[in-house]
Amino acid sequence: MGTVMKFGGTSVATVEKMQAIASFVRTRRETGENIVVVVSAMGKTTDRLVEMAMNLSDTPDPRELDMLLSTGEQQSVALMAMGLDAEGVAAISMTGAQAGIRTEGKYTRNRIANIDPTAIKAQHALGKVVVVAGFQGMNEAGDITTLGRGGSDTTAVALAAKLGFDCAIYTDVEGVYSVDPRMVPSAKKLDQISYEEMMEMAALGAGVMEPRAVEIGKKYGVPIYVAKSLSEKAGTWIDEGEAMEKKLITGLSVSGEILMVTVEKIPNDPGAVASIFQALQEQEINVDMISQTAPMEGTVAISFTCEVGDREGVRKAIHTIKHDGINVQARLQGDITKISVVGIGMRDTSGVASRMFQLFAREGIPFFQVTTSEISISYTIPSDRKQAAIQAIAKEFEL
Amino acid sequence: MGTVMKFGGTSVATVEKMQAIASFVRTRRETGENIVVVVSAMGKTTDRLVEMAMNLSDTPDPRELDMLLSTGEQQSVALMAMGLDAEGVAAISMTGAQAGIRTEGKYTRNRIANIDPTAIKAQHALGKVVVVAGFQGMNEAGDITTLGRGGSDTTAVALAAKLGFDCAIYTDVEGVYSVDPRMVPSAKKLDQISYEEMMEMAALGAGVMEPRAVEIGKKYGVPIYVAKSLSEKAGTWIDEGEAMEKKLITGLSVSGEILMVTVEKIPNDPGAVASIFQALQEQEINVDMISQTAPMEGTVAISFTCEVGDREGVRKAIHTIKHDGINVQARLQGDITKISVVGIGMRDTSGVASRMFQLFAREGIPFFQVTTSEISISYTIPSDRKQAAIQAIAKEFEL
Repeated sequence: MGTVMKFGGTSVATVEKMQAIASFVRTRRETGENIVVVVSAMGKTTDRLVEMAMNLSDTPDPRELDMLLSTGEQQSVALMAMGLDAEGVAAISMTGAQAGIRTEGKYTRNRIANIDPTAIKAQHALGKVVVVAGFQGMNEAGDITTLGRGGSDTTAVALAAKLGFDCAIYTDVEGVYSVDPRMVPSAKKLDQISYEEMMEMAALGAGVMEPRAVEIGKKYGVPIYVAKSLSEKAGTWIDEGEAMEKKLITGLSVSGEILMVTVEKIPNDPGAVASIFQALQEQEINVDMISQTAPMEGTVAISFTCEVGDREGVRKAIHTIKHDGINVQARLQGDITKISVVGIGMRDTSGVASRMFQLFAREGIPFFQVTTSEISISYTIPSDRKQAAIQAIAKEFEL
Repeated sequence: MGTVMKFGGTSVATVEKMQAIASFVRTRRETGENIVVVVSAMGKTTDRLVEMAMNLSDTPDPRELDMLLSTGEQQSVALMAMGLDAEGVAAISMTGAQAGIRTEGKYTRNRIANIDPTAIKAQHALGKVVVVAGFQGMNEAGDITTLGRGGSDTTAVALAAKLGFDCAIYTDVEGVYSVDPRMVPSAKKLDQISYEEMMEMAALGAGVMEPRAVEIGKKYGVPIYVAKSLSEKAGTWIDEGEAMEKKLITGLSVSGEILMVTVEKIPNDPGAVASIFQALQEQEINVDMISQTAPMEGTVAISFTCEVGDREGVRKAIHTIKHDGINVQARLQGDITKISVVGIGMRDTSGVASRMFQLFAREGIPFFQVTTSEISISYTIPSDRKQAAIQAIAKEFEL
């Protein structure tokens, strides 16, 4: 048995913070269990390195970008191992490659292909804490690779899965909340949430954990504990928890400002819809919430959301579509917020949608799009009604 | 055929300097030859990393220090490869380990055990410039290791030896001077110097190149060109050159402030002398210039030099010796400078020592110790006569 403890960049931003973490790991080590510590790059290190790369090239080679960015985590593991040594805890650092993490896929957003835990196990047998660089690995060609956004979470959960350990993600929030506590001060921290709910929450932008990492946790049954770094307060367990959780709605996730696009008069023909999304893809627009209503009078309408910065790209894509002879009408709307309610309880219980519609009607909050997944419902609403919606939903579902 | 081009930390201290170097390499690449670029860490990166380590531990683990410091060069190679790409030069970066550099010895001051050039040759076959991280390699255990002081020079010359390439060391001085031009403004830059002379000059603190690197150059017959980074001016070739160089004295090397220690009344017994140097070693004092005169009245006297900061350590060592029953007398003298003249011509010609003694007598410059090697003579003199000595020697030997 053992634990993988992951500390994010904010938790190791300074030498003083590293010392505090080292001391925390020491108390944990005194229980005698095997420990892997996964760390991210210190504070804003990655941002600084990206900036340097961008000063040299508008389109830096992705292999070289991985080579560059991986140094941030390598610095952190060496310093953390020194900090542990200074605390009297025998420790050894490893790069992703040294820890046996093999990757596949594209540079800058690789996936973990497999992990050879031999080196880690050998050091555990010697009684050492192993400090592993998050966010990185090595591909078949022997190149240093990185795992993309939130990659250190993925490293931690994947290592825990391979070693049969628990996984603790120490971050700068106290756990998973039903709703962002900055928006609803009375928000409750959850003691427990299921993998699926967390994946929806994460994907919907709750920001606590990378959804890929939660997915690996679910696949391999790794219990994940999310808690505030160096805090005494209990955090949140992410696990199977089907039976533990009785609540209908676990969480409420709210986006920042987004752009909503509605395209009308699309010929009712799958090819036409496909060419719209192809044109958007060519402009590298990351389309989020898509809703299409049933066709009327031989044409269909589709709404989707994307980032506010994609406005120009959307215009270009629409222009291309028209140029190709598909004479659609498009409308772009800013000042839009996306609100989602998530709960595994929704799977077996209807009525959440109905209660949401009543609530919006009662509060006089207009909504534009509605989409549903098995355990969530999302709405786009005018941003100026965001607070009213959050308060009403939090009250209605006792979040 | 090809060239290894090495750029030090000052030459790649900023993104702008990297761009200028990339452009310089491009013009070189246009000749069609295969190129390896070796780079050091940017500017003060290594110092900053050491400082962070020291904030975590007074005695950071050497393995972890290597893990930490090697990131500086790794950042440089990635950025340099991006810079070359931006100049239209196909390039790929490699860590020391990826470049096939295997090391042995102690962490933080490893030696290169061997180089497997397969990966570099494969990239040359694809027409790429290979950018290799200086100062680092990998040991048998798979740990990242560093080569100690001036290690990037060693990387460059060793790669040139293995690949059968020439080696160019681009630095912040215009080549090798007969005497430090900051001390003698009329100092002449040498067009050529032999490996042996350069090794003496380097060891005596001339500071242009790491003596180990020159030694590898000599061993494998690698011609080394030392020149100022991005300058049009011709630099200095370091090569066999026995026949090329007719001058008696090639160079004059001057130390900074040093401490001179004289130990008298040492019993004329090799064991007694040995215990003195053992006591000094236990205090980690790096003893430089040692001179012993023939015994008189059953005792011997030894003088040696060390760093000014070693004063306390020397006192402790002497205390230990006395405590062990060897009742020596010791004198510590500061404000001392070491001056050395170097020249391969001295090997076949006597008279340099004699001319030096006359010169000191004529100028009224006292000297304390004298030591000689096959191609050099060194003196310790009072620091306040340093300038007078330099001027007189430079004039006497037309440096």
